[in-house]
Amino acid sequence: MNEKRIHKPRPVSGFPEWLPEVRMVELAWFDHIRRIFESYGFCNIETPSVEELDVLHAKGEDVDKEIYVIERLHKEDGDKEARLALHFDQTVPLARYTAQHFNELTFPFKRYQMQRVWRGERPQAGRFREFYQCDIDVIAVDNLPLHFDAEMPAIMWEVLSSLPGMGGEKIQIRISNRKILMGFLEGLAIPRPDGTTIPLSADLKAEIVRDIDKLEKLGKKTVLQRIDGTGSRAGIGFGLDGIILPFIELCETAYRSADELEIALTNSRDINTGNSTLKEGIEELSFVMDQLKHLPGGAVVADLSIVRGLDYYTGTVYETVFTGDPGYGSICSGGRYDDLAGSYINKHLPGVGISIGFSRLFDRLRQQGKLPVGAKSPADILMVLPADDRRAEASETARILRERGFNVELYHSAAKIKKQMEYAGKKSIPYVWFPPFEDGQPHEVKNMQTGEQQKADAQTWRRS
Amino acid sequence: MNEKRIHKPRPVSGFPEWLPEVRMVELAWFDHIRRIFESYGFCNIETPSVEELDVLHAKGEDVDKEIYVIERLHKEDGDKEARLALHFDQTVPLARYTAQHFNELTFPFKRYQMQRVWRGERPQAGRFREFYQCDIDVIAVDNLPLHFDAEMPAIMWEVLSSLPGMGGEKIQIRISNRKILMGFLEGLAIPRPDGTTIPLSADLKAEIVRDIDKLEKLGKKTVLQRIDGTGSRAGIGFGLDGIILPFIELCETAYRSADELEIALTNSRDINTGNSTLKEGIEELSFVMDQLKHLPGGAVVADLSIVRGLDYYTGTVYETVFTGDPGYGSICSGGRYDDLAGSYINKHLPGVGISIGFSRLFDRLRQQGKLPVGAKSPADILMVLPADDRRAEASETARILRERGFNVELYHSAAKIKKQMEYAGKKSIPYVWFPPFEDGQPHEVKNMQTGEQQKADAQTWRRS
Repeated sequence: MNEKRIHKPRPVSGFPEWLPEVRMVELAWFDHIRRIFESYGFCNIETPSVEELDVLHAKGEDVDKEIYVIERLHKEDGDKEARLALHFDQTVPLARYTAQHFNELTFPFKRYQMQRVWRGERPQAGRFREFYQCDIDVIAVDNLPLHFDAEMPAIMWEVLSSLPGMGGEKIQIRISNRKILMGFLEGLAIPRPDGTTIPLSADLKAEIVRDIDKLEKLGKKTVLQRIDGTGSRAGIGFGLDGIILPFIELCETAYRSADELEIALTNSRDINTGNSTLKEGIEELSFVMDQLKHLPGGAVVADLSIVRGLDYYTGTVYETVFTGDPGYGSICSGGRYDDLAGSYINKHLPGVGISIGFSRLFDRLRQQGKLPVGAKSPADILMVLPADDRRAEASETARILRERGFNVELYHSAAKIKKQMEYAGKKSIPYVWFPPFEDGQPHEVKNMQTGEQQKADAQTWRRS
Repeated sequence: MNEKRIHKPRPVSGFPEWLPEVRMVELAWFDHIRRIFESYGFCNIETPSVEELDVLHAKGEDVDKEIYVIERLHKEDGDKEARLALHFDQTVPLARYTAQHFNELTFPFKRYQMQRVWRGERPQAGRFREFYQCDIDVIAVDNLPLHFDAEMPAIMWEVLSSLPGMGGEKIQIRISNRKILMGFLEGLAIPRPDGTTIPLSADLKAEIVRDIDKLEKLGKKTVLQRIDGTGSRAGIGFGLDGIILPFIELCETAYRSADELEIALTNSRDINTGNSTLKEGIEELSFVMDQLKHLPGGAVVADLSIVRGLDYYTGTVYETVFTGDPGYGSICSGGRYDDLAGSYINKHLPGVGISIGFSRLFDRLRQQGKLPVGAKSPADILMVLPADDRRAEASETARILRERGFNVELYHSAAKIKKQMEYAGKKSIPYVWFPPFEDGQPHEVKNMQTGEQQKADAQTWRRS
């Protein structure tokens, strides 16, 4: 025999797991979110954990780097399958799903999805590499009413403000419309040495969008430096940062209404508010903000700094922050995309969606001790086993109670009563049931919180 | 602009996904299973999708080949992390979890787990590479009462016989105890040329166990040939198959009780029933069968052909088949393992568990058209939008109904009523609600099944 070697297992960095009592709260969160999503008529789907690598590629530079591919440990020669990779979000798989099952779906297709996603980040404190997202999206054929752009954040407000443990948190949904930024960039004319001007290239615009997306994280100064560098590399012979600055200055304020934002835009002499894309963006944002007036004051603001890094967004964009801690980053984000499925199907399928970064939010509250963590078991009742020869009666009593909807754990051995009660206490099981220790005696139930103990009948007993 | 190229997406072989109406049934199955597991006091956990490769290795030859490793698409130099792989079952991660969180768990630790697992099989019809398993396990410190070996299949019987769509299916749980086979093999003495005898080596025994595990799949003749080959390779100069044959003959019958099995064993002159391990196995099996007498006749049988391929089982083993189609293989399997966590922690942690091969079972019923597939949406009510200027009232009515627990989808545009009703019909939404088209008119609700339409009040309405 070999000597027994012990390798104490370590947690794998970035792949969280919870103790049973925490998992119980996590399940309650999922149930809560599912109930609200379904109350608005969203159906559920799940997609496989993997997509063909080509499907995931090129949806945004930052994400590309983080893709996990999977491979069989013992590959055999002649494996000619497409490379498979774990999905990094639920939007790209949704687009593929919608195109693939197009003929079998009813549009507008309203679905929710609550799955794990994976991002192969370098291990660092607080970054998850496997985490849950909870998404709702609506996808329509040709036309998707703008009302949905307002319904999305309204539903998420309902979810986030009512999750167990979130009661004391102040959050704010920040909304913008990418057309405002894209229209501003479109309206720019870059002077050339010969006196003519040219518009910004598509690549340059995309790069500026990604730079502005980092405002919260990197700060104004760094972002302006990056934009300057981007301009230089593109051969623009003067400070591109100076041209973008007026927009960035408007990013520093959050506006209570789209009207206020429009006034600020109009007042900025360096922004060409005549651009039709920009105008459209303001109109859309104005409509969405208007539809959200029923939410509490400060719940929603118009904020031009919200642009989202992913390339596929084309209109409304959302982020959600803890009002007192915006640096923590967004806990619920999304937006409108006009043609995400366009590479799979010859249809125009605009969509709008929003996603809760579930695990990150949950773990924040867990670490702050704000989750209602309690019982270690779903059992309502611990059924005492008085003696081995009374097992049949204890089992039958448990069965009757289960049939009546109670969760009942039967203690596994005829141990001392004190030990059985301690077990119920350790697991925070609220009631302990004593079947008769001798024939003819009554059943009794102890309420572990009040200490009260009363006669009981399994057919009629109710929680006290 | 590039010309638009369309790549119609294909399903990835072995990674199933369902349409919304099928997913609704799948969710109902998960809810059902969860409710029953929790009614017995099992708590839920989830482990990460990955484990360090070393944790997964060497739990059974067949599985090893099927492990999927994951890797970042753009690995950077200096990555020195342990290799990660997707788990292929939930038992090995449970063992690691139990050891890692030992001090924070309450024992016996009774948990259920319903997650995806991955097996990198070659793509072939009907084989899933990603699928759900639903497991219950109990892990104790030092001693795990044998009652749990009986509770496991009893719970699974309750689950399997009551799943939506399973009503017409006849299933049978087949139980054995590995100690019977191990005891039989222990009792064998292999003659050597010098006239002495030696026992079978551990490796040889393990190989024979794996061969016998394939009886259902390969048939008696092939299994005997394999055992003969195994013997020859190990240098045994005569037919090992002949020595194992008496056991294999007993595998051909399923016994209603352990008593019947014991009689058959005793009657077989070539089996050494004096071996203490074999005796223990019979006693344990007898106890378990006895505890399951309350199940319907034929629900449970003692069957020596059940051995399970995985190396970690040490006592009771279970498989479950469709009585009319045993060749389909097991839909619910498991067993007792004495020391699965032993390599992580200096404790003796025996466990017993059983697992439903959820996706395979679900897909079989789906393909046979036996699932109650109906509605494409969780909505109880479609709220008609009479006109754009009546949206506020329609929204408010929907809100009141949602607060009362109904799922309400608000139609997205003020389209013709016929179109809105067709939408409800396509999604099988059972009620259509008509808010007033003019001030002062009443609300009305149409029952889409009966065609009946009645006045209604959102505060008091009930399903008809």
